[in-house]
Amino acid sequence: MSKQRFDELRKQLDEVNLEILAVLNSRAQLVQEIGLLKTGKGTERFDPIREKEMLDLVVQANTGPFSDDTIRHLFKQIFQASLGLQEEEKKSLLI
Amino acid sequence: MSKQRFDELRKQLDEVNLEILAVLNSRAQLVQEIGLLKTGKGTERFDPIREKEMLDLVVQANTGPFSDDTIRHLFKQIFQASLGLQEEEKKSLLI
Repeated sequence: MSKQRFDELRKQLDEVNLEILAVLNSRAQLVQEIGLLKTGKGTERFDPIREKEMLDLVVQANTGPFSDDTIRHLFKQIFQASLGLQEEEKKSLLI
Repeated sequence: MSKQRFDELRKQLDEVNLEILAVLNSRAQLVQEIGLLKTGKGTERFDPIREKEMLDLVVQANTGPFSDDTIRHLFKQIFQASLGLQEEEKKSLLI
Protein backbone atom coordinates (compact mmCIF):
# COMPACT_ATOMS: atom_id res chain seq x y z
CA MET A 1 0.00 0.00 0.00
CA SER A 2 1.17 3.46 -0.83
CA LYS A 3 1.02 6.76 1.01
CA GLN A 4 -0.91 7.99 -2.00
CA ARG A 5 -3.75 5.49 -1.38
CA PHE A 6 -3.79 6.44 2.28
CA ASP A 7 -4.08 10.16 1.49
CA GLU A 8 -6.82 9.41 -1.01
CA LEU A 9 -8.83 7.51 1.61
CA ARG A 10 -8.39 10.34 4.10
CA LYS A 11 -9.66 12.81 1.54
CA GLN A 12 -12.67 10.59 0.91
CA LEU A 13 -13.25 10.46 4.66
CA ASP A 14 -13.33 14.26 4.86
CA GLU A 15 -15.84 14.32 2.01
CA VAL A 16 -18.03 11.71 3.66
CA ASN A 17 -17.90 13.69 6.93
CA LEU A 18 -19.27 16.72 5.09
CA GLU A 19 -22.01 14.56 3.55
CA ILE A 20 -22.96 13.34 7.02
CA LEU A 21 -23.02 16.96 8.23
CA ALA A 22 -25.30 17.99 5.37
CA VAL A 23 -27.77 15.18 5.86
CA LEU A 24 -27.82 15.64 9.66
CA ASN A 25 -28.72 19.29 9.17
CA SER A 26 -31.37 18.39 6.58
CA ARG A 27 -32.88 16.13 9.21
CA ALA A 28 -32.66 18.91 11.80
CA GLN A 29 -34.55 21.25 9.47
CA LEU A 30 -37.33 18.72 8.98
CA VAL A 31 -37.57 18.13 12.70
CA GLN A 32 -37.81 21.87 13.29
CA GLU A 33 -40.65 22.10 10.79
CA ILE A 34 -42.46 19.16 12.39
CA GLY A 35 -41.91 20.78 15.79
CA LEU A 36 -43.54 24.01 14.63
CA LEU A 37 -46.57 22.10 13.33
CA LYS A 38 -46.80 20.28 16.66
CA THR A 39 -46.66 23.60 18.55
CA GLY A 40 -49.75 24.70 16.71
CA LYS A 41 -51.52 21.47 17.63
CA GLY A 42 -50.24 21.20 21.20
CA THR A 43 -48.97 17.68 20.47
CA GLU A 44 -46.14 16.23 22.55
CA ARG A 45 -42.76 16.50 20.86
CA PHE A 46 -41.33 13.27 22.18
CA ASP A 47 -43.20 10.35 20.70
CA PRO A 48 -41.63 7.05 21.83
CA ILE A 49 -43.77 4.95 19.48
CA ARG A 50 -42.75 6.99 16.46
CA GLU A 51 -39.12 6.91 17.61
CA LYS A 52 -39.19 3.11 17.86
CA GLU A 53 -40.81 2.94 14.43
CA MET A 54 -38.02 5.08 12.93
CA LEU A 55 -35.31 3.02 14.64
CA ASP A 56 -36.84 -0.26 13.44
CA LEU A 57 -37.01 1.03 9.89
CA VAL A 58 -33.38 2.09 9.93
CA VAL A 59 -32.10 -1.11 11.56
CA GLN A 60 -34.12 -3.19 9.11
CA ALA A 61 -32.35 -1.41 6.24
CA ASN A 62 -28.90 -1.75 7.81
CA THR A 63 -26.47 -3.86 5.85
CA GLY A 64 -23.34 -2.85 7.77
CA PRO A 65 -20.44 -2.57 8.32
CA PHE A 66 -21.87 -0.84 11.40
CA SER A 67 -23.71 -3.33 13.60
CA ASP A 68 -27.42 -2.87 14.32
CA ASP A 69 -26.56 -1.97 17.92
CA THR A 70 -24.16 0.76 16.80
CA ILE A 71 -26.73 2.15 14.36
CA ARG A 72 -29.35 2.12 17.11
CA HIS A 73 -26.96 3.96 19.42
CA LEU A 74 -26.00 6.60 16.85
CA PHE A 75 -29.60 7.27 15.83
CA LYS A 76 -30.68 7.61 19.46
CA GLN A 77 -28.03 10.31 19.81
CA ILE A 78 -29.34 12.01 16.68
CA PHE A 79 -32.94 11.82 17.94
CA GLN A 80 -31.90 13.28 21.27
CA ALA A 81 -30.06 16.15 19.60
CA SER A 82 -33.13 16.80 17.45
CA LEU A 83 -35.38 16.98 20.50
CA GLY A 84 -32.96 19.46 22.05
CA LEU A 85 -33.31 21.56 18.93
CA GLN A 86 -37.12 21.52 19.20
CA GLU A 87 -36.88 22.61 22.82
CA GLU A 88 -34.73 25.61 21.86
CA GLU A 89 -37.20 26.46 19.13
CA LYS A 90 -40.11 26.26 21.57
CA LYS A 91 -38.34 28.55 24.05
CA SER A 92 -37.61 31.13 21.37
CA LEU A 93 -41.29 31.12 20.40
CA LEU A 94 -42.39 31.65 24.00
CA ILE A 95 -40.14 34.64 24.58
CA MET B 1 -51.52 23.01 8.66
CA SER B 2 -52.98 19.78 7.41
CA LYS B 3 -52.50 16.17 8.44
CA GLN B 4 -51.33 15.66 4.87
CA ARG B 5 -48.38 18.04 5.34
CA PHE B 6 -47.51 16.34 8.61
CA ASP B 7 -47.51 12.88 6.98
CA GLU B 8 -45.40 14.23 4.14
CA LEU B 9 -42.80 15.57 6.57
CA ARG B 10 -42.71 12.27 8.42
CA LYS B 11 -42.15 10.43 5.16
CA GLN B 12 -39.30 12.82 4.34
CA LEU B 13 -37.86 12.15 7.79
CA ASP B 14 -37.84 8.40 7.14
CA GLU B 15 -36.07 9.02 3.84
CA VAL B 16 -33.47 11.28 5.46
CA ASN B 17 -32.90 8.64 8.15
CA LEU B 18 -32.07 6.11 5.44
CA GLU B 19 -29.70 8.62 3.81
CA ILE B 20 -27.94 9.09 7.15
CA LEU B 21 -27.71 5.31 7.51
CA ALA B 22 -26.17 4.97 4.05
CA VAL B 23 -23.59 7.67 4.54
CA LEU B 24 -22.67 6.40 8.03
CA ASN B 25 -22.01 2.97 6.57
CA SER B 26 -20.00 4.48 3.68
CA ARG B 27 -17.86 6.14 6.33
CA ALA B 28 -17.55 2.86 8.23
CA GLN B 29 -16.31 1.13 5.07
CA LEU B 30 -13.66 3.80 4.51
CA VAL B 31 -12.55 3.56 8.12
CA GLN B 32 -12.27 -0.22 7.80
CA GLU B 33 -10.11 0.18 4.71
CA ILE B 34 -7.90 2.75 6.44
CA GLY B 35 -7.68 0.42 9.44
CA LEU B 36 -6.46 -2.43 7.27
CA LEU B 37 -3.77 -0.23 5.76
CA LYS B 38 -2.72 0.83 9.25
CA THR B 39 -2.52 -2.82 10.36
CA GLY B 40 0.04 -3.41 7.67
CA LYS B 41 2.05 -0.43 8.84
CA GLY B 42 1.62 -0.98 12.56
CA THR B 43 0.32 2.60 12.93
CA GLU B 44 -1.91 3.49 15.87
CA ARG B 45 -5.60 3.52 14.97
CA PHE B 46 -6.59 6.35 17.26
CA ASP B 47 -5.05 9.57 16.06
CA PRO B 48 -6.22 12.52 18.22
CA ILE B 49 -4.63 15.12 15.93
CA ARG B 50 -6.37 13.75 12.86
CA GLU B 51 -9.62 13.51 14.83
CA LYS B 52 -9.39 17.16 15.86
CA GLU B 53 -8.62 18.10 12.26
CA MET B 54 -11.72 16.26 11.03
CA LEU B 55 -13.91 17.85 13.73
CA ASP B 56 -12.62 21.34 12.94
CA LEU B 57 -13.32 20.85 9.25
CA VAL B 58 -16.86 19.71 9.90
CA VAL B 59 -17.63 22.45 12.44
CA GLN B 60 -16.20 25.05 10.09
CA ALA B 61 -18.62 23.89 7.40
CA ASN B 62 -21.60 23.80 9.77
CA THR B 63 -24.38 26.23 8.90
CA GLY B 64 -26.97 24.72 11.27
CA PRO B 65 -29.67 24.28 12.39
CA PHE B 66 -27.62 21.97 14.60
CA SER B 67 -25.26 23.96 16.81
CA ASP B 68 -21.50 23.45 16.52
CA ASP B 69 -21.55 21.77 19.94
CA THR B 70 -24.18 19.29 18.84
CA ILE B 71 -22.30 18.53 15.63
CA ARG B 72 -19.12 18.02 17.66
CA HIS B 73 -20.95 15.66 20.00
CA LEU B 74 -22.54 13.63 17.21
CA PHE B 75 -19.29 13.29 15.27
CA LYS B 76 -17.42 12.20 18.39
CA GLN B 77 -19.98 9.43 18.75
CA ILE B 78 -19.47 8.47 15.12
CA PHE B 79 -15.67 8.48 15.53
CA GLN B 80 -15.94 6.29 18.61
CA ALA B 81 -18.20 3.82 16.83
CA SER B 82 -15.73 3.73 13.95
CA LEU B 83 -12.83 2.94 16.29
CA GLY B 84 -14.91 0.12 17.77
CA LEU B 85 -15.34 -1.25 14.27
CA GLN B 86 -11.59 -1.18 13.65
CA GLU B 87 -11.00 -3.04 16.91
CA GLU B 88 -13.38 -5.81 15.83
CA GLU B 89 -11.63 -5.97 12.48
CA LYS B 90 -8.25 -6.26 14.17
CA LYS B 91 -9.46 -9.08 16.41
CA SER B 92 -10.86 -11.03 13.48
CA LEU B 93 -7.50 -10.71 11.71
CA LEU B 94 -5.63 -12.02 14.76
CA ILE B 95 -7.79 -15.13 15.16
